[in-house]
Amino acid sequence: MPRQLHLNAFLMTTGHHEASWRLPESDPSAHVDLAHYVRLARTAERGTFDSLFLADGPQLWSSVAQRPAGALEPLTLLTALATATEHIGLIATASTSYNSPYNLARKFASLDIISGGRAGWNIVTTAGAEAARNFGLDAEPAHAERYARAAEFLDVALKLWDSWEDDAIVADKAAGVWGDDAKIHPPRHRGRYFSVEGALNVPRTPQGYPLLVQAGSSEDGKAFAARYAEAVFTAQQTIEDARAFYADLKSRTVREGRDPEHVKVLPGIVPVLGSTEAEARAQEELLEDHIVHRHGVEHLERLLQLPAGSLDLDAELPADLPPESEIEGAKSRYTLVVELARRERLTVRRLIGRLGGGRGHLTFAGTPEQVADAIETWFTQGAADGFNIMPPVLPSGLELFVDHVVPLLRARGLLRTEYGPRTTLRQRYGLPRPANQYVRPAGAPALV
Amino acid sequence: MPRQLHLNAFLMTTGHHEASWRLPESDPSAHVDLAHYVRLARTAERGTFDSLFLADGPQLWSSVAQRPAGALEPLTLLTALATATEHIGLIATASTSYNSPYNLARKFASLDIISGGRAGWNIVTTAGAEAARNFGLDAEPAHAERYARAAEFLDVALKLWDSWEDDAIVADKAAGVWGDDAKIHPPRHRGRYFSVEGALNVPRTPQGYPLLVQAGSSEDGKAFAARYAEAVFTAQQTIEDARAFYADLKSRTVREGRDPEHVKVLPGIVPVLGSTEAEARAQEELLEDHIVHRHGVEHLERLLQLPAGSLDLDAELPADLPPESEIEGAKSRYTLVVELARRERLTVRRLIGRLGGGRGHLTFAGTPEQVADAIETWFTQGAADGFNIMPPVLPSGLELFVDHVVPLLRARGLLRTEYGPRTTLRQRYGLPRPANQYVRPAGAPALV
Ligand SMILES: Cc1cc2nc3c(=O)[nH]c(=O)nc-3n(C[C@H](O)[C@H](O)[C@H](O)COP(=O)(O)O)c2cc1C
Ligand SMILES: Cc1cc2nc3c(=O)[nH]c(=O)nc-3n(C[C@H](O)[C@H](O)[C@H](O)COP(=O)(O)O)c2cc1C
Repeated sequence: MPRQLHLNAFLMTTGHHEASWRLPESDPSAHVDLAHYVRLARTAERGTFDSLFLADGPQLWSSVAQRPAGALEPLTLLTALATATEHIGLIATASTSYNSPYNLARKFASLDIISGGRAGWNIVTTAGAEAARNFGLDAEPAHAERYARAAEFLDVALKLWDSWEDDAIVADKAAGVWGDDAKIHPPRHRGRYFSVEGALNVPRTPQGYPLLVQAGSSEDGKAFAARYAEAVFTAQQTIEDARAFYADLKSRTVREGRDPEHVKVLPGIVPVLGSTEAEARAQEELLEDHIVHRHGVEHLERLLQLPAGSLDLDAELPADLPPESEIEGAKSRYTLVVELARRERLTVRRLIGRLGGGRGHLTFAGTPEQVADAIETWFTQGAADGFNIMPPVLPSGLELFVDHVVPLLRARGLLRTEYGPRTTLRQRYGLPRPANQYVRPAGAPALV
Repeated sequence: MPRQLHLNAFLMTTGHHEASWRLPESDPSAHVDLAHYVRLARTAERGTFDSLFLADGPQLWSSVAQRPAGALEPLTLLTALATATEHIGLIATASTSYNSPYNLARKFASLDIISGGRAGWNIVTTAGAEAARNFGLDAEPAHAERYARAAEFLDVALKLWDSWEDDAIVADKAAGVWGDDAKIHPPRHRGRYFSVEGALNVPRTPQGYPLLVQAGSSEDGKAFAARYAEAVFTAQQTIEDARAFYADLKSRTVREGRDPEHVKVLPGIVPVLGSTEAEARAQEELLEDHIVHRHGVEHLERLLQLPAGSLDLDAELPADLPPESEIEGAKSRYTLVVELARRERLTVRRLIGRLGGGRGHLTFAGTPEQVADAIETWFTQGAADGFNIMPPVLPSGLELFVDHVVPLLRARGLLRTEYGPRTTLRQRYGLPRPANQYVRPAGAPALV
């Protein structure tokens, strides 16, 4: 079988375009409507996607005027979707900066068990002071600090997920012995950010632990991904940038002693579909016409760390923006936006239009054939192992993709036509089930 | 309609009796089997129970040999059960000592929305050093400290749940205004234990917030319950003690300026059912015969804060146990156990037998009529507003209760025969939907 595409449905209320909620078709209550998400999940499953994905940040942005805000917490929503689906993976974003390893490890383990091995964790460090101030801090922790904490968080979480051997439960009713204490391994971790003494109170799960996904593309982010991630979400505006990112990440993974096939690179794409190119462009323009630019300016000023009121809608970005090294928030997104604006000499208004669709992800307007071609090109030319599909409008954008693009990808032999017998999310990604760090491999020499 | 009983199904793997997993009928994998819990939930719904309840502690006890350990995290499991049930309330235990208000408030709000207003929170402060050591502490925080933190936690959580007015979402597509920023109220809380600046990122929920349940019976626990709780779980061994507790809690509630009808007192009962009294006793003995006393001794030594090895199986408890005031763990459970042992002059072995069934809750072995009589007596004589039903063996114990005791309670007019049109958990408890603290009641005078 030829190499297969990995498709992930990135779900977001009425769609990724910030103006999507204003279209007549959109339900303004979609953000809290389980039935809306069940419908999306089943559509993605009909399209034999690998997984669903939900973004997250533990804060409400300053204004709720702009677009649907306030949503169901991702782990909770994906747990409900686990019971409404059979095959599809369930990837929840959760922050290493604002959770504790014991609580979070339990929740992912529980979801992995309930879903029969379909859980994934998009590991993020959470930029922004808004989140920090909801957790007792006055300001955002420094970027390097956040990634240092993330690494220790992962080490602890992996110990917790391995703290039960797979065969720790003996359930010997006659002898009255339920579990084998020798197969329980408390982490006894004492580190810089965390001290965690005891074993998890959830047994080892079908996948061992959730699929580990990472979504930051700064230097620290890539180093972290090379060490831990099994899938990487990334925003790339051009195939050249995407190829460079892909090659960089794979070679970093090799340098970490890992198989480069064991980390899948998934750029985001916002497919704006039409049955003709003109129809697709018209849809793109319709959405752009509904943007309220005032909000876009506020967002940009926040991302660029500029004081409120410093941007002029009809001018280009200021020439004297700081280098990425001085940004403590979302570093790689900062660079992407600045480079996009400079490369295409966009005014702030046009930049907001370009970002409104996908917040920095590639927006591609065209026919199903054109979208399938773009996907195939990136996939076969070393830019992607698959895609994070980010429909501009939901549910219609996902339905269009599944009904019109998926059949083309299947006809080209790039995408499975059914799920088949392998059932865990990690199996779908072609990855082995992780060994337990506390178990000596069979046949390994005893320590002397 | 006469006053109605509130019944709550307290679910626990293979049952509340610690030896239940050893019976031939028990599934040793029940602790991680969603289907097992779905079956229990549907049985309870068939019995028109008010709610399901799951206990919780963020730690694994020292030995997994004794009984099923390691379970699905309650909020995760109840979310999955929300989609498998229609009417029944879903009460999850969560600790105020080892969670942050922002994260926990989000999760309960999400469950309340997903379940259509059926969420409840059993608020606990979590005794024991095992849990503390999983969250960066060396020892259990002092009892008073835990309750002080719990009170501030509640104040913050209530602000977060009220941070969106019910009508904050305007969804004016034409004007491009989704939400009304004037109806969002960031807590801006700065307290002793928490600083939480921003509004919740979940809109106000069907119930406003989850039903607030409390389960500690120490002085601090009762003071907390009188202030915040809408339902109280309690362990009571005699009807006299239960009546005293009931009267005390109701009068404390009045002193807090609250309606005593707005806090429901629910003692636990472990019904060991048989079609004759002899059959019920035989079942009780069968379970007791399967207890492994070594584990019981360890548990007792921990509860009584005694060094390992200090208890003699065939002697009574030592005479010189400390007063409750010196206990930093589970104060009221400590007193209950010591008083039970002294009152009945139990050896440690017999005490373990008595506790093995319900860990301090009343075990009642008898026919369905006898169990219904006991329930009716406590209910009509000022000892209870309902019960926390804790079947010794699951699923069979819940099925016996629903098939044989529930019809008797219904025939006596004490229990609903169907759920009827009121749909939220709080409505089932006969409680009003809470007003939003940030909204001036209609008709209230403007502040001058
Ligand atoms: C597809 C995708 C989804 C993301 N989702 C989130 C998210 O939900 N929450 C979050 O805090 N960061 C998310 N990020 C990561 C932020 O963009 C990231 O924090 C930012 O790039 C900063 O990381 P960096 O500084 O390493 O670049 C996502 C990134 C991508 C590419
Ligand atoms: C029915 C019932 C269920 C309880 N469930 C829990 C629980 O799941 N987790 C917990 O930490 N405490 C739970 N408790 C409360 C503990 O028993 C409580 O922490 C203990 O009584 C200490 O509180 P106190 O010191 O106020 O008495 C429960 C109590 C009752 C009566």
